[in-house]
Amino acid sequence: MIPQRDAQTAAELVAVAETLADAARVATLAHFRRTDLAADSKETDRFDPVTEADRASEDAMRALLAQLRPDDAILGEERGLTAGTSGLTWVLDPIDGTRAYLSGTPTWGVLIGVTDATGPVLGIIDQPYIGERFIGAPGVAQVTGPQGTAPLRSRAPRPLAQAILFTTFPEVGTPAEGAAFHRLARQCRLVRYGMDCYAYGLIAAGQIDLVVEAGLQTYDVVAPIAVIEAAGGIVTDWQGRPAHGGGRILAAANATIHAEALAVLSQAPDP
Amino acid sequence: MIPQRDAQTAAELVAVAETLADAARVATLAHFRRTDLAADSKETDRFDPVTEADRASEDAMRALLAQLRPDDAILGEERGLTAGTSGLTWVLDPIDGTRAYLSGTPTWGVLIGVTDATGPVLGIIDQPYIGERFIGAPGVAQVTGPQGTAPLRSRAPRPLAQAILFTTFPEVGTPAEGAAFHRLARQCRLVRYGMDCYAYGLIAAGQIDLVVEAGLQTYDVVAPIAVIEAAGGIVTDWQGRPAHGGGRILAAANATIHAEALAVLSQAPDP
Repeated sequence: MIPQRDAQTAAELVAVAETLADAARVATLAHFRRTDLAADSKETDRFDPVTEADRASEDAMRALLAQLRPDDAILGEERGLTAGTSGLTWVLDPIDGTRAYLSGTPTWGVLIGVTDATGPVLGIIDQPYIGERFIGAPGVAQVTGPQGTAPLRSRAPRPLAQAILFTTFPEVGTPAEGAAFHRLARQCRLVRYGMDCYAYGLIAAGQIDLVVEAGLQTYDVVAPIAVIEAAGGIVTDWQGRPAHGGGRILAAANATIHAEALAVLSQAPDP
Repeated sequence: MIPQRDAQTAAELVAVAETLADAARVATLAHFRRTDLAADSKETDRFDPVTEADRASEDAMRALLAQLRPDDAILGEERGLTAGTSGLTWVLDPIDGTRAYLSGTPTWGVLIGVTDATGPVLGIIDQPYIGERFIGAPGVAQVTGPQGTAPLRSRAPRPLAQAILFTTFPEVGTPAEGAAFHRLARQCRLVRYGMDCYAYGLIAAGQIDLVVEAGLQTYDVVAPIAVIEAAGGIVTDWQGRPAHGGGRILAAANATIHAEALAVLSQAPDP
């Protein structure tokens, strides 16, 4: 649940978050689709490129926060946790979907979230190449992109047999997690892959019904949760518990289809 | 091979093709991300939505061709074949990736191709929401989008173990075709799904190495072939034969990696 925050505070935080997103656009686009882009690997046994752009994007956002919100904590994918005293934490994924970024697709994003003691309270999903920004916060649910600005509102309930389900990779985590995903997928009308964080924006925009992922991190989910909840959707783990710590994610357009999907996914054994 | 056509003729055809693409943008964006979009199905046993936008897009392009190129033939996904006398055929897919379109992703496209007796001679892959247009024709290989205009040049050879491979659905056609695809996929560095025609643009832009598909139609491939060949790439079927009739497609950034992928895919039994 998004708490009822003071409207002025929410507007101030959104303004700061947009300033961060603007800076991240410059940092990420400076390297996007360069044909000489280098990638190294954080893990030797799994392909997970970290690019110069990833670090430059997070550093640009951290420099702004040091100026604008010096009392807030920061949790970033690249540089870890910086403590704060305000009770608010900025949760940054400077490039969500580094494999998408390295492939040149326009489906990676910059994720900027804010949490307080209750969980996510603000989120931005920004796609710099398209110039598209999904924003969710108390009293704010909108997307601004090539076609202008529009409100975000997630879909009304429809049966699973009419639903559109997204995930990034068809394997979806462990074999047991993948099996649970595909049990759900077989009941849906359409399953699509490869969209990374962009899929969460599509739930908020009322285009699709479900996103299911596994093995995510806090910085992958805080911003999407805030965007989707502001648009009327719901995000939990596969047991219906709060999801902002990462792990197994079930994001849904509404509570009805969330419950239907949860009934399938909750059968997966604990990891 | 793209024949050496008269440069003025090529420029004239590109100008007409861009006029068509502009009209298709208007027609397709009028319905994109509408939350009340209806879809019916061409095939009862396979989900293949046809939208009002699909038909409006093709009809807008056909109306322009009737004015601007009345002697050319037209082959369109929605309205079939219209005969001509010039020896040139416009090959139109008004929305390639209708499932992507219905899901709100920015990875569908409008495909506009021209063939003569030798095969594809001109192609446009246009993504209206992003405002991005990949163009290939004799003497022309460029992309225009949010970041301006840039030349298209496909990648230099790299080993399969360093290659990025795309396809739209992990199933990739029949079980035998899917098995051949996944034999190839296991040798690549990275496999991504869900990009429809946009993946061909990424080959031309030097971002990825391979796209493999099966079960395609003429209107799915003529424009991508022209764009990729103009950028220095190569497109054939899984036996190395001309691919502009559709079917099994192997699109590659260069002849070296094409040969490596062909050695794997050509083992698939004939359909």
